[in-house]
Amino acid sequence: MGGSLAMALKRARPDWTLVGNDGPDVLEEARKHSVVDETEVDAEKAVRDADVVVLGAPVEAIVEHIGKLASTFRPGSLVTDLGSTKRNVMKAAESLPDEVNFVGGHPMAGKVTSGLRAADPDLFQGAAWALVPGAPNRTAGISELSEIVRAVGGEPITVDATTHDRAVAVVSQLPQILALVLCEQAASVERGTELGGPVFRNLSRLAGSSTAIWNDIFSSNADMLIEAVAELERRLKEARADLAGTGMGSHFEAARKAVAASARPSNLDEPDH
Amino acid sequence: MGGSLAMALKRARPDWTLVGNDGPDVLEEARKHSVVDETEVDAEKAVRDADVVVLGAPVEAIVEHIGKLASTFRPGSLVTDLGSTKRNVMKAAESLPDEVNFVGGHPMAGKVTSGLRAADPDLFQGAAWALVPGAPNRTAGISELSEIVRAVGGEPITVDATTHDRAVAVVSQLPQILALVLCEQAASVERGTELGGPVFRNLSRLAGSSTAIWNDIFSSNADMLIEAVAELERRLKEARADLAGTGMGSHFEAARKAVAASARPSNLDEPDH
Repeated sequence: MGGSLAMALKRARPDWTLVGNDGPDVLEEARKHSVVDETEVDAEKAVRDADVVVLGAPVEAIVEHIGKLASTFRPGSLVTDLGSTKRNVMKAAESLPDEVNFVGGHPMAGKVTSGLRAADPDLFQGAAWALVPGAPNRTAGISELSEIVRAVGGEPITVDATTHDRAVAVVSQLPQILALVLCEQAASVERGTELGGPVFRNLSRLAGSSTAIWNDIFSSNADMLIEAVAELERRLKEARADLAGTGMGSHFEAARKAVAASARPSNLDEPDH
Repeated sequence: MGGSLAMALKRARPDWTLVGNDGPDVLEEARKHSVVDETEVDAEKAVRDADVVVLGAPVEAIVEHIGKLASTFRPGSLVTDLGSTKRNVMKAAESLPDEVNFVGGHPMAGKVTSGLRAADPDLFQGAAWALVPGAPNRTAGISELSEIVRAVGGEPITVDATTHDRAVAVVSQLPQILALVLCEQAASVERGTELGGPVFRNLSRLAGSSTAIWNDIFSSNADMLIEAVAELERRLKEARADLAGTGMGSHFEAARKAVAASARPSNLDEPDH
């Protein structure tokens, strides 16, 4: 995700100097492919003079980075992240000095494969990008980050951390759970996976996403996600009654209404986490 | 679906004479776009001299056609269908004369939009195509149909009607139900549909599929589908316990194993019904 953003920023902000921070191997790869202008293996040195810092890592690592770098971020700089859940991150950001403009971020885009090789500057085209203000009175940085998001093709959506986490539990984490469970169920019936059509196969690709990244996301949002799964169970029970009764007509109508209310073009066919 | 097959057959079997049967408006459109060589609004006349007959219609209409045309099919001809469920169709086919080689068919391919305008000769590339023998001792036609399926890019999978219906309940009908219910659930949480990423948006496209076609499929397979939904509820309940406990690691492993066992290239990104 960081690699994709670097490539997108290189195109959108050619005058910026992009400094990459990661492990030595990733940085060598990034240098080789000119994904960034400079590399710095030391996180403190990498962020010290930066005008804009983007923390791209699993949620737990982002939380750790915020703690470690709190006194290093330059006063007046914009600091954001790419974490998939926001309550933990925003809680960690409370400890930052007032002069650091922290805005939580979450681009609703991604790929099954991760790492620099999968990096794609077009990843964010048409993607919703959640922006989470640090606190009601800490809105500095929102408009600056919105501009950056738009420059790389994303659509900024300002939202508080709790609303974000409840929403993505349903529209991002729940589909990942469903994909896994559906694959297991397909394998439990004779000829199931063999007879899978494009929809099933598209969903089943999500089984290839990183277990570690998803487990980090799931555990950082467990309460909301467990609520979402339980709610889906209730809705499926209702659908089951309708299948035995009046049919699914009302569900088609409601689903179409929901989709029409949020129509937006996008990169299809890729998972989001 | 019939239009896509006609276009694919025109390419794969240029020496065949393709006769289209449908309502006058569809036939005029088919003539205009040269989808078929000849058109015939009278079903009896259309099938009387045919070597191969493909019944493409909602399941209930296929069942009716088989009954009405039983004495019209040419002895020795191959008759197949494109219906999404197979027990009803195969039951209707029992009434056919022994000289008619009926083999049930179900290509696991499709589009959200139906009708001739959505017709696509590449629709069946890489698609599983269920072939259902009429009875254990009525396997005539299987190899002939397999060749036709392969010629248009599909992969024939011979399977009995009950196994087929149980499998597609899980891998085709259940995903459609899930897409609808997930859209409704997303609309029930604040900012839900707005924050949908590519996976959610891809699923939500299925809300645009034809209610009439799906309700026909659902009602013709209600027992299997209701069982599949109930089984998914049980699996989600288990997943919910794992989210609160040991995590989803074992589900990732099981899902990957299921997918690896059935890896096959395909047209992604299109629904199947």
